[in-house]
Amino acid sequence: MVSRFKRFLIGRPLRSAEIEEEKLGKLKALAVLSSDALSSVAYGTEQILIVLMAAGFAAVWYSIPISFAVLGLLLVLVLSYRQTIYAYPAGGGAYVVAKDNLGVPAGLLAGGSLLVDYILTVAVSSSAGTDAITSAFPSMHDHRVLIALVMIAFLTVMNLRGITESASVLAIPVYLFVAAIFVLIVSGFVKYLTGGVHADVPEWGTAVSNISLFLLLKAFSSGCSALTGVEAVSNAIPNFKKPAERNAAATLVMMGAILGAMFIGISLLAYWFGISPNPKETVVSQIADATFGRGAVYYAIQGVTALILFLAANTAYSAFPLLAFMLAKDKFMPHAFKVRGDRLGFSNGIIFLGVLSALLVAAFHGDTENLIPLYAVGVFIPFTLSQLGMMVRWIRRKPQGWAIKFAVNTVGMLTTLSITLIFIFTKFHQVWMIFVFLPAVIYLFYQIYRHYANTANQLRIDPCHDKPVIKGSTIVVPVAGITRVVLNSLSYAKSLTDNVIAVYVGFDDEEIERMEKKWEDWNPGVRLIVLRSSYRSITRPIVKFIETVEWKKAETDHLTVLIPQFIVKHWWQHMLHNQSSLLLRAYLFNQKDVVIATVPYHLRK
Amino acid sequence: MVSRFKRFLIGRPLRSAEIEEEKLGKLKALAVLSSDALSSVAYGTEQILIVLMAAGFAAVWYSIPISFAVLGLLLVLVLSYRQTIYAYPAGGGAYVVAKDNLGVPAGLLAGGSLLVDYILTVAVSSSAGTDAITSAFPSMHDHRVLIALVMIAFLTVMNLRGITESASVLAIPVYLFVAAIFVLIVSGFVKYLTGGVHADVPEWGTAVSNISLFLLLKAFSSGCSALTGVEAVSNAIPNFKKPAERNAAATLVMMGAILGAMFIGISLLAYWFGISPNPKETVVSQIADATFGRGAVYYAIQGVTALILFLAANTAYSAFPLLAFMLAKDKFMPHAFKVRGDRLGFSNGIIFLGVLSALLVAAFHGDTENLIPLYAVGVFIPFTLSQLGMMVRWIRRKPQGWAIKFAVNTVGMLTTLSITLIFIFTKFHQVWMIFVFLPAVIYLFYQIYRHYANTANQLRIDPCHDKPVIKGSTIVVPVAGITRVVLNSLSYAKSLTDNVIAVYVGFDDEEIERMEKKWEDWNPGVRLIVLRSSYRSITRPIVKFIETVEWKKAETDHLTVLIPQFIVKHWWQHMLHNQSSLLLRAYLFNQKDVVIATVPYHLRK
Repeated sequence: MVSRFKRFLIGRPLRSAEIEEEKLGKLKALAVLSSDALSSVAYGTEQILIVLMAAGFAAVWYSIPISFAVLGLLLVLVLSYRQTIYAYPAGGGAYVVAKDNLGVPAGLLAGGSLLVDYILTVAVSSSAGTDAITSAFPSMHDHRVLIALVMIAFLTVMNLRGITESASVLAIPVYLFVAAIFVLIVSGFVKYLTGGVHADVPEWGTAVSNISLFLLLKAFSSGCSALTGVEAVSNAIPNFKKPAERNAAATLVMMGAILGAMFIGISLLAYWFGISPNPKETVVSQIADATFGRGAVYYAIQGVTALILFLAANTAYSAFPLLAFMLAKDKFMPHAFKVRGDRLGFSNGIIFLGVLSALLVAAFHGDTENLIPLYAVGVFIPFTLSQLGMMVRWIRRKPQGWAIKFAVNTVGMLTTLSITLIFIFTKFHQVWMIFVFLPAVIYLFYQIYRHYANTANQLRIDPCHDKPVIKGSTIVVPVAGITRVVLNSLSYAKSLTDNVIAVYVGFDDEEIERMEKKWEDWNPGVRLIVLRSSYRSITRPIVKFIETVEWKKAETDHLTVLIPQFIVKHWWQHMLHNQSSLLLRAYLFNQKDVVIATVPYHLRK
Repeated sequence: MVSRFKRFLIGRPLRSAEIEEEKLGKLKALAVLSSDALSSVAYGTEQILIVLMAAGFAAVWYSIPISFAVLGLLLVLVLSYRQTIYAYPAGGGAYVVAKDNLGVPAGLLAGGSLLVDYILTVAVSSSAGTDAITSAFPSMHDHRVLIALVMIAFLTVMNLRGITESASVLAIPVYLFVAAIFVLIVSGFVKYLTGGVHADVPEWGTAVSNISLFLLLKAFSSGCSALTGVEAVSNAIPNFKKPAERNAAATLVMMGAILGAMFIGISLLAYWFGISPNPKETVVSQIADATFGRGAVYYAIQGVTALILFLAANTAYSAFPLLAFMLAKDKFMPHAFKVRGDRLGFSNGIIFLGVLSALLVAAFHGDTENLIPLYAVGVFIPFTLSQLGMMVRWIRRKPQGWAIKFAVNTVGMLTTLSITLIFIFTKFHQVWMIFVFLPAVIYLFYQIYRHYANTANQLRIDPCHDKPVIKGSTIVVPVAGITRVVLNSLSYAKSLTDNVIAVYVGFDDEEIERMEKKWEDWNPGVRLIVLRSSYRSITRPIVKFIETVEWKKAETDHLTVLIPQFIVKHWWQHMLHNQSSLLLRAYLFNQKDVVIATVPYHLRK
């Protein structure tokens, strides 16, 4: 039943050898890995304008130089991550680069931030997608949390079905969004250039009295939130078709070009059309309205924008399991994250991401807006560490032409570091949590690592000297009467060794005498030890008896306790059997160093 | 930790031999077993008056003959149950009497009704007690369900502590209640006889135009709800100090006398004081008010009345576990109900009663008034069956003077049968459920019985011919590498038999080759079988392999699968180990007829 439902949900299992077919070509990869980055176009320009409006409408012209600065940073990031892809063809996320060049702690800092960040991404963007839906259908507002959870469940199942399948389904809305935004930009440009726009906008270079460097920096850093998601490609190199690094680099450049063009296009249109941010209508909506009016095209643009905001979560579904895999390979996360599931994805990572983000959505009742700054900081910390790591790498290795590469990474590092600091200073009340849970996550990483290291040490043997040793064996068989179960158990035990002891626990003299008599009559060739329990417990007398045997035989013998267990036909029949054997088993198992052999007895009715 | 909390809650375990000290003397027994019956005084008269008021205030004089009729029925019930106690000194609840004389189905009908009834008693009276509290402190009204649940938890824990201890604590309010009601009755009589009451009451024998037999019968049956709980003593004979039946009979007579006196006293006062039922104030409260005014005495009476309503539940805590024990002894309920807990009570019955009534309270949000008629029917069905059973017994055995005893039981049977029928006809919309769940409960009894009978048949052996048979043994050891765990497992297996096979599951050729090479170098003296898993599952290839071995060796050998299992130091470390061994164990255990031996490996850190 369960198994059939699983098949229905995620499809037939795939052979390990089919993994090459599950890998992504450039176009599918672009769709899967860029949805997070591209979706920021929907709000990037708006973020800049909102900050600038603090200095009045006259300041909006600053949005153009700031947008170009963001574009410059995007260029630096793309160039820098392109360098990283070629340097780390096996997957060069911030974790790997920082660990490799700056040491393990820096790597864990980067890896921890990204892990947390991916969870936040899913929570934030599924909430944002839900808000878009409930804006269109206000009657569904009461079911926001449910809708967000259904969406997370949908994404989780899609990703469990495998990368290619999810890419095939989820690529469509991404391409629709790109097409829609380009149609909007081109139409807007045409309208502007043909003089169809008559907006009263502050001229380029207008002096603004109360503008400050702080405000400009804050606007710049807000605009940089459009760059989150750029690192996804470099994390996901192992998911690419061969030649993986070439395909990844090409995908990264394509993504950068599309993102840059869309971002700067929207910023220019917003300025030309004299648009000011409005809490009730997004900037993109205003531009679309001004260009096309409220017709079919307008609603189509709005629709795909809502969809892409929601799909941004999908990038995290590609990146999180791979990052968790890498951390698990280095023993900083549980082994379970290393296992590929039926459809060759890292199912445990996918499920873990789904569950944690669902909990976050439920805990915040779907109001996850306050998490956005946290999420931006969580991206820029690993950005900075990754750039710094690359700088160190160039200095150490000094390959041909390293000076330029070093310069690129230095510019990148300084910019991302500044942005991180600006975020922390300007929005401390929203991001202080990161100083609590990043150390917590890193502590956890180290605890896990230590456990694995300790375990490995304890398990290591010397193959030359450590060989199996043959010792004697004693088997203890608790019996409750003379039944077929006892007969089976004794047959089994006697087949293995001559040292078999049957143990019976009685509650009063009469009972004990009767049992001794019956045993004698039966005469199965096994000694019966009778224990008297004054407190009506079966486990305690048996445990005490085993301790005695253990103490006597520890040196010479292996000790086995044979526990018969009924296997019932129907689940409710479980309740009809005193589960003392389970209790005994659990106790011995956790406390004693004896082997516990369970002899099943399958009830036929 | 858990164990220490348990000790704190219910006290140190008692030896089986201490059971005699846990038994009840007459006075404690009266308190524990009569709280249900005595508490009905708080509402019995009121139930009669409410029905009569349908024919106008002039009809209230009928309450006196009806009350005497109820008193007569009480006398019949006491005499009849006294006969039962002597006839069944080992405990003669309706279940035993009906089963013994009318056959098993009748016994199960009586037992099933009573079991359900005890659960209803706890739910109804804890809700009633809560209502009394929240009437006094209206601010607590929002926490009604919580208060009722806390009360149920309190009663459950008290009863788990043992009968005598709960009797010592819970006897006080019962005796306070009896004292308070007698003070009220005596003071009321004195006031009436000294001419202190000037109420305008319809005279005895006043003709009432619209009175009908149906109405009178309904009033009578409503008054009979005061008799619920009378059967408790006869169920609980095994809980009495020796001589049990003599003590039980004396307790029953005492209880009948107190109950009868209080009931008729309250009914007379209600008539003399001209009291009419009022949804806002109980009859007892009106009488107390008229007798003492709203002073300290009034509030004391109200207080202990609230308390006794709540404590009525405690009778069920004595009777339910004993009845469940008897049903379990006859294999109609799970064996677990036969086990005496640490404090010599039938803990499982006590806990089961507590949990089910708590669920009922939670499901009804504490509004359990609608369950009261159901609960009365649930009492009178076993009353009737028990009387009928006694009638059959007298006819069959014909002891000296049986005619009178037969007459007593016949009168009792006819009356209780009539009351049952009146309840069913006059309140069918509230009691129809009983026709659904009584058959369900009885069906369940039979299912359980059948399972136990089947099991016993399957387990039975012939001690003369069925002796342990020695066969060969094959031990299969799944290995994941060459570690100390594998070394231990192989040492153990080789100590038991020469037929040891190690099985390794590899995912690709390289891995498999490496393992084969390492095994050869180690040379532990055990053959290694290597399986290739194309679908990354470890369980499936091993299960297939075991099926092959099983098929080859089934005739000649016992087959054992040795599964190593890590025992971690801290619970969270569980998550760090792939639990494939647990999965394998669960699968083999449920599907196959192989012995599963678990070799624990205790991690030291």
